Amino acid sequence: MAAHEQELPVPFKRYHIDKVWRGENTQRGRYREFTQCDFDIVGTTVMDADLEILLLIHSSFQSLGIEGLDIKVNHRGIFNRFLQHLGLREQGDEIMRLIDKRGKIGEDKLKEELHQLVGSENADTILSYISGGGDFMNTLEEIARLAGGHDDDTRRLAEIYRALEEMEIAQYFSLDPSIMRGLDYYTGIVFETFFRRLPDIGSVCSGGRYDNLASLYTKTALPGVGSSIGLDRLIAALEELGMRKGEQQAADVAIFRVEEDLAGYYHGIARRMRAEGLSVDVFPERRKLGQQFKLAEKKHIPAALICGEEEYQSGKVTLKNLQSRTSYELISLNEAIKRARTIASGPAAE
Amino acid sequence: MAAHEQELPVPFKRYHIDKVWRGENTQRGRYREFTQCDFDIVGTTVMDADLEILLLIHSSFQSLGIEGLDIKVNHRGIFNRFLQHLGLREQGDEIMRLIDKRGKIGEDKLKEELHQLVGSENADTILSYISGGGDFMNTLEEIARLAGGHDDDTRRLAEIYRALEEMEIAQYFSLDPSIMRGLDYYTGIVFETFFRRLPDIGSVCSGGRYDNLASLYTKTALPGVGSSIGLDRLIAALEELGMRKGEQQAADVAIFRVEEDLAGYYHGIARRMRAEGLSVDVFPERRKLGQQFKLAEKKHIPAALICGEEEYQSGKVTLKNLQSRTSYELISLNEAIKRARTIASGPAAE
Repeated sequence: MAAHEQELPVPFKRYHIDKVWRGENTQRGRYREFTQCDFDIVGTTVMDADLEILLLIHSSFQSLGIEGLDIKVNHRGIFNRFLQHLGLREQGDEIMRLIDKRGKIGEDKLKEELHQLVGSENADTILSYISGGGDFMNTLEEIARLAGGHDDDTRRLAEIYRALEEMEIAQYFSLDPSIMRGLDYYTGIVFETFFRRLPDIGSVCSGGRYDNLASLYTKTALPGVGSSIGLDRLIAALEELGMRKGEQQAADVAIFRVEEDLAGYYHGIARRMRAEGLSVDVFPERRKLGQQFKLAEKKHIPAALICGEEEYQSGKVTLKNLQSRTSYELISLNEAIKRARTIASGPAAE
Repeated sequence: MAAHEQELPVPFKRYHIDKVWRGENTQRGRYREFTQCDFDIVGTTVMDADLEILLLIHSSFQSLGIEGLDIKVNHRGIFNRFLQHLGLREQGDEIMRLIDKRGKIGEDKLKEELHQLVGSENADTILSYISGGGDFMNTLEEIARLAGGHDDDTRRLAEIYRALEEMEIAQYFSLDPSIMRGLDYYTGIVFETFFRRLPDIGSVCSGGRYDNLASLYTKTALPGVGSSIGLDRLIAALEELGMRKGEQQAADVAIFRVEEDLAGYYHGIARRMRAEGLSVDVFPERRKLGQQFKLAEKKHIPAALICGEEEYQSGKVTLKNLQSRTSYELISLNEAIKRARTIASGPAAE
């Protein structure tokens, strides 16, 4: 972006799904090379950009059918003002690092280390600040109070929450003042995403606002906000939730290869079905029907289209639901397409 | 595939779009690392698999809107039998290498080198074999004759051609007996794909049948057929054809940010439009209308949805066609969705 700022429209929205490489030390589950889906809006500081990244996180996981989505939001600007208020701005990095380790070291150890670092009174105030737990707006009131009152940052969080409420998705978001994202480059909103059914897997999508990051590369101000999904961790999570079955279904319909000379005819049918949005696997080998049924089963294909001499001569086809074993004999291709669509969307739909 | 043959359904169809690395020497335009889309059917020798790979090549370029598609097919088995017939089987590799170089060295030089290698009579017969140029079935008759008559290989090509005719796409395919694909591992059909408008760019999609390739890795016979599209070369070709404009269109509709407090409302509209298949860019910054028009123009977005106080109060929206400057004022969202769809499909459609 910094290299192409003259050509690119600003605000610039971009996404990228590909390999990335970690600069920090590798650890178990934190590889040097991994696959990431990331998305950012660069070149603007407005609230709308923060909101849109949150909406994108929500709609991504909604389209995957995730239940119990918990997108935890916080704001580094408010926390910094809070530390300033306590006169602890200089210990900020160390305090954030400790809070980030809370999950690993536990509440007691955190308290102990904070006591040592900033004294018991300050430590208690910090622990009270990060405790959260109430609903979004109450928590916001509480951290605003501890930071010395409302300002643009707190008003921005309130505005974002109002928009989420208006879109009727506020229930997927919480304000968690313990979310720090310890990287120096975050300057505003920060967020992490959890699946309630898999608390141990950690955040599957994290990010925040970084208004000075591009200053490494350009003198132009290129503020931005963005987030990223670690694809490997997400796939592991979906597997643990038993939600990867769609991936195993090789196609919606298998067209069995039954007659010697009908290859072109079968592929013609496949083309028409694909034009209607169905995914079709034309079996290439003329084998016994039983073997073709087995192959369809192994490929988790829910429906078979069979077109033998009788069907071919009458311009009809036969469709079989391979789960229920129901046959629809000698029906039109249009009817077969409708039935295949119903079968493919699952037993409940039929 | 060889490593997982027990678990995988056979025939196994796979595709892959990602980086690959070249084992052979690099050259100008032939990088060590490049991006390839490749697709194969492994575990079967049947004609249907060859056919389906050809159909996939055709439908891929058709969906890109390529005109003047020329998929050139040949068969290594027939050529080998032809060489056997001439008693030249042992010089086969060298002969194929020469023929592969034809484009580079020219017809005269090829003739001269073939003369030296196999004598003038054989050279003339080979040049006659590879000359092709007639229609598919006539060329097939001619090479069958030169190879000593019909066999399973020639019958397979005839069967494939019949299926292509039945699907009414035979005009995109030709039989070119000079296509060799000099790699040792091809054993049957081979093919290359050209755009008639860009003959110099070379083949954009090549492949063939390789029935012994997997024998490097497993004792099980894993015959296969497949092809690959070099993505970089394809994109260069599309650019040369002036066919990349779709890529620049950032969205179908821009929702302008005009009122202070309507972020959630605008994103709610975007969600409804996206559910109807439109791609929507909600502009995050409240700027002067003129600036938002300029941004839409820079992003090649053909329509703008504007919702100010009047529209909001009446539950309506205003849609503007940014090319024709036509305005549809205070219309329902459903009507705006319909109009936006028409505008997005281009000036001809409206």
